[in-house]
Amino acid sequence: MKIALAQLNFHIGNFEGNFAKMSRAVAEAKAQGADMILFPELAVCGYPPRDFLEFNDFIRRCDAVVAQLAELSQGIAIVVGSPSVNPRVEGKDLYNSAFFLADGAILDVVHKALLPTYDVFDEYRYFEPNRDFHLVHWRGERLALTICEDLWNVGNENPLYPSCPMDELMAQEPTLILNLSASPFHYGQAGERLSVLRHNCERYGLPLVYVNHVGAQTELLFDGGSVALRADGTVYEELPYFEECLRVVDLAEMGANSPPPGPQPREKYDLIRRALVMGIRDYFGKLGFRDAILGLSGGVDSALTLVLAAEALGPEHVRAVLMPSPFSSDHSIADSLALCANLGVSHDILPISTLYETFLAELQPLFAGKPFDLTEENLQARLRAVCLMALSNKHGYILLNTSNKSEAAVGYGTLYGDMCGGLSVIGDVYKTEVYALCAEINREREVIPANILTKPPSAELRHNQKDSDSLPEYDQLDAVLLQYIEHRKGPREIIAMGFDEELVRRTLRLVNINEYKRHQTPPILRVSPKAFGMGRRMPIVGWYLH
Amino acid sequence: MKIALAQLNFHIGNFEGNFAKMSRAVAEAKAQGADMILFPELAVCGYPPRDFLEFNDFIRRCDAVVAQLAELSQGIAIVVGSPSVNPRVEGKDLYNSAFFLADGAILDVVHKALLPTYDVFDEYRYFEPNRDFHLVHWRGERLALTICEDLWNVGNENPLYPSCPMDELMAQEPTLILNLSASPFHYGQAGERLSVLRHNCERYGLPLVYVNHVGAQTELLFDGGSVALRADGTVYEELPYFEECLRVVDLAEMGANSPPPGPQPREKYDLIRRALVMGIRDYFGKLGFRDAILGLSGGVDSALTLVLAAEALGPEHVRAVLMPSPFSSDHSIADSLALCANLGVSHDILPISTLYETFLAELQPLFAGKPFDLTEENLQARLRAVCLMALSNKHGYILLNTSNKSEAAVGYGTLYGDMCGGLSVIGDVYKTEVYALCAEINREREVIPANILTKPPSAELRHNQKDSDSLPEYDQLDAVLLQYIEHRKGPREIIAMGFDEELVRRTLRLVNINEYKRHQTPPILRVSPKAFGMGRRMPIVGWYLH
Repeated sequence: MKIALAQLNFHIGNFEGNFAKMSRAVAEAKAQGADMILFPELAVCGYPPRDFLEFNDFIRRCDAVVAQLAELSQGIAIVVGSPSVNPRVEGKDLYNSAFFLADGAILDVVHKALLPTYDVFDEYRYFEPNRDFHLVHWRGERLALTICEDLWNVGNENPLYPSCPMDELMAQEPTLILNLSASPFHYGQAGERLSVLRHNCERYGLPLVYVNHVGAQTELLFDGGSVALRADGTVYEELPYFEECLRVVDLAEMGANSPPPGPQPREKYDLIRRALVMGIRDYFGKLGFRDAILGLSGGVDSALTLVLAAEALGPEHVRAVLMPSPFSSDHSIADSLALCANLGVSHDILPISTLYETFLAELQPLFAGKPFDLTEENLQARLRAVCLMALSNKHGYILLNTSNKSEAAVGYGTLYGDMCGGLSVIGDVYKTEVYALCAEINREREVIPANILTKPPSAELRHNQKDSDSLPEYDQLDAVLLQYIEHRKGPREIIAMGFDEELVRRTLRLVNINEYKRHQTPPILRVSPKAFGMGRRMPIVGWYLH
Repeated sequence: MKIALAQLNFHIGNFEGNFAKMSRAVAEAKAQGADMILFPELAVCGYPPRDFLEFNDFIRRCDAVVAQLAELSQGIAIVVGSPSVNPRVEGKDLYNSAFFLADGAILDVVHKALLPTYDVFDEYRYFEPNRDFHLVHWRGERLALTICEDLWNVGNENPLYPSCPMDELMAQEPTLILNLSASPFHYGQAGERLSVLRHNCERYGLPLVYVNHVGAQTELLFDGGSVALRADGTVYEELPYFEECLRVVDLAEMGANSPPPGPQPREKYDLIRRALVMGIRDYFGKLGFRDAILGLSGGVDSALTLVLAAEALGPEHVRAVLMPSPFSSDHSIADSLALCANLGVSHDILPISTLYETFLAELQPLFAGKPFDLTEENLQARLRAVCLMALSNKHGYILLNTSNKSEAAVGYGTLYGDMCGGLSVIGDVYKTEVYALCAEINREREVIPANILTKPPSAELRHNQKDSDSLPEYDQLDAVLLQYIEHRKGPREIIAMGFDEELVRRTLRLVNINEYKRHQTPPILRVSPKAFGMGRRMPIVGWYLH
């Protein structure tokens, strides 16, 4: 049996676009002689559809696409993810389903049993879990058709669910496991995914064909990496990361004694770079925008953001604006100009000194003689944001946010100032990782001027300011943040690891008292296992670790 | 048996504060001769604790408070909600539990079975559902101890869960139902709650004692309304809305033939007003702030917000700033001054004309000769926001946002401009409801000058602008929005109700293409069954109804 894996980039709610793309893939799979084509989980509507699932109209349109696809299933079986209506009045109204289409009709429908409801996932919000386990019979194969999480309760020390769907299905003696997924990227995900899938092959002694989404859906990035595994868990075929790909695997050849392909490279910073570039490109492409604008400060964060934007959109579609204040250093301008020249990005210089002085004069009567403080610092950041948004409005650019994860974590940024933007590009990248990414970018030639990478980080909002005046050194800070944010360790546990107690208490307090700021930030491209945004939900008014 | 209902205002993560409050309530209940005291769901940590539940340290602190409370349970039983650790390795790590404390120890622990995971609720994100149903025996009563949603699968046409915990418990012949709740307010909730509870009494033929949270947790407002019902479903005792209250009910007297108390008034706009005032007060009180600032435009939205803020914080803790632009009308200033005088709120007048002209001059070279458009309108709104945030920073005010739900829905507001603020006070109140609330406020005397209520709504960002230049009339718009937002009707269904097709398509499109704006707005006090914010989760990059 020949199976086509259709690793495609879908668009949430774009039913016509998604159907057109699937229709082309079906034609190509037929041309390559495939018996069956697999599309990912909820491919019909895109993933995650979120609360659109609560609209009957949305479900009706999903059903219509499934019906259209069924018509194409002549001479080929089509397996595709779509929501389906729960016929029972009790329980949630929908299932997260895999439709098995063949001979022009819906041959079978299988529902997802394990519904991820953690981090970025909300599936029990919408779906009833499956309790009816059966195989799909097709051209001599007995197919265990599963959906994403259904295979992920295997091989964990702390399984999230009391049961495994494959355990239920094994009594019916399947010959092959199929899995339709929507498994978002983080820098460790590709490795974990292969490990989980291998565990399934080994535990059940079955080959496995797995198809995943590729492409970005706002903050969620899907890296693809669809894969066919032999019954012993070795990789027979793996599709590329971050690219659409249709590939046909032949089960008959899968058992043959060919050597497994070398694993795809999975270097952390190369993956993050490619993920962020895809994230920017799809955010713009799927919203129908082409041009980005950003403020270039002379610092490392905006430099990295500019490089990634130019790579994603083309340098001719990015505009950099330099907005020196009375506190900006000369090298900030020079370094920024050198970077723009290296990238071939156009720039403008718009000093904010006049704006700043005018504001100070107008506000003076209301400041009641109070001295220079954070107010004047924030004012500069906000005036820059007003300029950038004015250019964005006037010319149709999307403003890119340049904040990193370390400053987002501790609130070292100005709300409605440098925290503005339509999309946060590196908001899930710690400052120390920002430097590592820049090193990766500069590996072959110096794209980012060395001076940007070697000078001490500074917001340049008052004279001789350095980040380290207000914050711990970033290597210390990031190490504590990683334990608290990604690993969910509490203060006692982090201190017990050897970190300075005052550093830990101060850092955790800063994270918690700044939830209100993060509540109002743009969506952040997610590249870590725990990003700020939809996957991390914290009370704003709270008193824990204050 | 005498049961004390402790309807209290807890603070998320403030373990010491919450324990102190519960400790005082236990002492008072003992003094009143109670056999038992009931605290609400997850009272120990406050509700909703959200992802703090993923921290072992947080759970450890909950356990410590439960242990402290157990020590107080001498001569009185204490029933209190707290998370508890799932002893099995399979499934989620926690239960949402009710601890039954008596004779200085934990006598029993009962877990929640039905875990709301919809709208603002995320409980399956954290908790394993209960599958072990048993009664608690105490002083001759056989208690069916339930937690909130456990009673809500009764009396619905479309039950969300396949089973009802009380059905399981009835075989053990309970004598009384207890329910610990965290049931947030919306303007129809108090009526629905009484109806659901009555259905339970009637179905099971048992009396019911129900205790709810009161107070605000950022956007979620809890109205209390704790209640004791007789076995026939009639109300024996109901605690007040929006107030902390400890009250003892005597089961022996509950059966007596006394007439039921008159129902508490539940007039929609009175409830909303009290809810919003509580929401402002608790947002400030629980964050440790006292003073608010807001921009007063002369329009109805900022007028209403000012009235509510003055009521919540006291007029001496609110500062109104009038910021006329070249497009502001004279009556905007006069009306605003009259309102401030009526309320006794201090004000400042800060014209933005100089700021605006300076910005236009500085930006001129980069505007490339393009004509006046939305850019210049947004610029005015953003300059005002910069002024307000500067005053907020300099003097420690919290900026209140004054946007209403209609404009939030269709994106009729400026990001980083009038959409700024620490808290959105009326962001869940449609424009037509804003007028109704103002009428409610003006019922006894004219607090809000009549001119503010009668002039046509205008943003005053260009000459002779009216909202109706860009938007449908609000009565039409709000009616469509209600169907789409609250009732989740699709375009075909709304058109079939008789609404103009072009109006419907345009409105739904505006709602959907403005998700990106709402993503960056402050938390919104929730007063309707479907508010923008944590309870409505939509893709930003999507193409549905575009």
